[in-house]
Amino acid sequence: MSGKNIAFVKGFSCQGITAGLKKSKRPDLMIILSDRPAKVAATFTKNVVKAEPLKLNMAHVQNGEAQAIVCNSGNANACTGEQGYTAAIAMAQQVAENFQIAMDDVVVLSTGVIGREFPVKKVLKGIDLCAGKMESTFQSGENTAEAILTTDTVSKQYFCDFTIGDSSVSIGAIAKGSGMIHPDMGTMLAFIVSDINIGKRILKRTFKEVVGKSFNMISVDGDTSTNDMAVLLCNGAAENKKIIQEESPGYLVFKEALQDACQSLAKQIVYDGEGVTKFIEYKVINVKSEKDARKIIRTISNSSLVKTAMFGHDPNWGRIIAAAGRAGVDFDPGKVNMYIGNTCLLKNGTPVSGVLNKAEQLLRERDIYVTLDINTGDDSAVGWGSDLSVEYVKFNSDYTT
Amino acid sequence: MSGKNIAFVKGFSCQGITAGLKKSKRPDLMIILSDRPAKVAATFTKNVVKAEPLKLNMAHVQNGEAQAIVCNSGNANACTGEQGYTAAIAMAQQVAENFQIAMDDVVVLSTGVIGREFPVKKVLKGIDLCAGKMESTFQSGENTAEAILTTDTVSKQYFCDFTIGDSSVSIGAIAKGSGMIHPDMGTMLAFIVSDINIGKRILKRTFKEVVGKSFNMISVDGDTSTNDMAVLLCNGAAENKKIIQEESPGYLVFKEALQDACQSLAKQIVYDGEGVTKFIEYKVINVKSEKDARKIIRTISNSSLVKTAMFGHDPNWGRIIAAAGRAGVDFDPGKVNMYIGNTCLLKNGTPVSGVLNKAEQLLRERDIYVTLDINTGDDSAVGWGSDLSVEYVKFNSDYTT
Repeated sequence: MSGKNIAFVKGFSCQGITAGLKKSKRPDLMIILSDRPAKVAATFTKNVVKAEPLKLNMAHVQNGEAQAIVCNSGNANACTGEQGYTAAIAMAQQVAENFQIAMDDVVVLSTGVIGREFPVKKVLKGIDLCAGKMESTFQSGENTAEAILTTDTVSKQYFCDFTIGDSSVSIGAIAKGSGMIHPDMGTMLAFIVSDINIGKRILKRTFKEVVGKSFNMISVDGDTSTNDMAVLLCNGAAENKKIIQEESPGYLVFKEALQDACQSLAKQIVYDGEGVTKFIEYKVINVKSEKDARKIIRTISNSSLVKTAMFGHDPNWGRIIAAAGRAGVDFDPGKVNMYIGNTCLLKNGTPVSGVLNKAEQLLRERDIYVTLDINTGDDSAVGWGSDLSVEYVKFNSDYTT
Repeated sequence: MSGKNIAFVKGFSCQGITAGLKKSKRPDLMIILSDRPAKVAATFTKNVVKAEPLKLNMAHVQNGEAQAIVCNSGNANACTGEQGYTAAIAMAQQVAENFQIAMDDVVVLSTGVIGREFPVKKVLKGIDLCAGKMESTFQSGENTAEAILTTDTVSKQYFCDFTIGDSSVSIGAIAKGSGMIHPDMGTMLAFIVSDINIGKRILKRTFKEVVGKSFNMISVDGDTSTNDMAVLLCNGAAENKKIIQEESPGYLVFKEALQDACQSLAKQIVYDGEGVTKFIEYKVINVKSEKDARKIIRTISNSSLVKTAMFGHDPNWGRIIAAAGRAGVDFDPGKVNMYIGNTCLLKNGTPVSGVLNKAEQLLRERDIYVTLDINTGDDSAVGWGSDLSVEYVKFNSDYTT
């Protein structure tokens, strides 16, 4: 981290305050505001059970513009039905009135415990308090990052800058993760802002692609939440020549920076997953399609048996190959090579002898690299997962007590 | 259990002996033999990585007839390639020679640790030993049931009889489960024998349907093994009038008895799952199709967050509804009712107040009943799952040590 954070992106201000929704009295409500309407791209949970704020956001981002994000932690507003929807609308209205912006340019999120009544009054008072303290200072960025956390132990942040022509462009981002981290979006909250000047359509297309290679490729526990979302606001304050297509100057630099931002946040989320003791990078190479590679990674990284083996630093290639085999991808097990780090465990589907001690040593590290060479094509993918520890179970079995 | 077991099915003999494949010196090899060629139906793991014995069996059952089952525990013969295939053929041949039956009427299974060299010589010597001790006694049935166990703590058995016309018909069955129990077959071993006189085609159809409502509806850890299989032999020794179609006398009685047998074994497997402290029956009712109901059950019963909540007797309806929502089935969360036992937690998607204490009490029982009323159709399904305990993780993280 560079000493800069989300507050350093031109044309944005932000703040995180304590509205009193968390027992801990830690910051639990934040607003990010652009000084002008920004282009917006967003991805939503694929869960058919969508929290009410998400339904509102899907309408609000439809025109490709937004200007503010408001998010509370401590209560997920996950009740279905009118009560939740009314609360989400009230939050958007309160933000809109405070800043004299359009109500449908406000993105609304709530995260935290499910199934408790949503404390609308506290939240609306919190919005007023927060709106009066908006800043573009390092501290305001830190407060903002902290206010979205739930069971996370550290805040997840990213900042980078680069130039397009004579313009300095920056990207700042925050995220929360912890429970229910799983591919398919619907996994976490990520708020990314940039001052880049870019068109709506190409922004939408690019964000979707980048999310597919970052947030959608991580897994902690295989569940998807009902109110998770990633949103990207680009307000154009950098005044670079507007990017309107893949061929526009600066597009590739921006895309790479955006991918770095999203992958960094995704990995930070896995690192800080509930009860996680291992961070595992899975590469699946030489597959018929990237889609197939992703399917295999997701199935392996979600396997309870693979994850418990990782926790116990057991180089159990049998569990890994068995998980790959049920991913719904056709391949020849007799052609597969498997590596942990640079150590080859399986060559053409047959165990290599004399390497298990070395492999076990590698599994004692915090960071583990697993490569599966399927040997039947040219495509590949990368993804990130965790182990399944005794602590995970303890944590998730008495979360509410 | 009735004091009778698999050995009491007419025309079958069996035995389980110690071939020396398990460190514990417990029985580790068994043979079940019919005194005449029997009709056979079988279901195989859907994992693309199939152990070599399964490939052999798929060929051996193709003509709809088989006469013997041989199975060793202690080593899974899960190596891909020639070595494993040669070993499986050698096992079939050894059985065929001992009993003077056709080699392709022998079904071959191996279960146990993956990734160790397969001790062919020991296994073949074990087959000779076992073949010399075949009996139709209670003790031989018990030995047979024990010889297929791996990490199971108890044997899984079932026996029942009924009449068709003047004929007394019986069904006897054994199974092993424990690790890697998951829908989609490829979950466990089950050997079911009956003396019923029945045609090949209707037997195959009936077994497939029954397996779909029993073994395929259980889940302990979501993984499927590479060498799991259920096989049913019917030798006709009961001499009932041959069942050739759904309308044949006795068909429905048989089908129900077979379903009872398979569901009983399936539930016994969940009960004895690695580190299982809760047995949960899930009913999903009033859905558009049985397929949808099954999808929802599988997703809920595999959710780590639902399973840890069950372990911690936390009536967390939010995790259950969130899991249902990502099952790939379209439904309206605002119409869903949810029950634990007879206690309604959610009514039309809205939490019922004042019931959480009662629900928590119900979750402290060993057996838990969860019903989800989707309220959008006439179909339903039932399935069985477990919790995710600290013991599960401990068990699976140091299995090989």
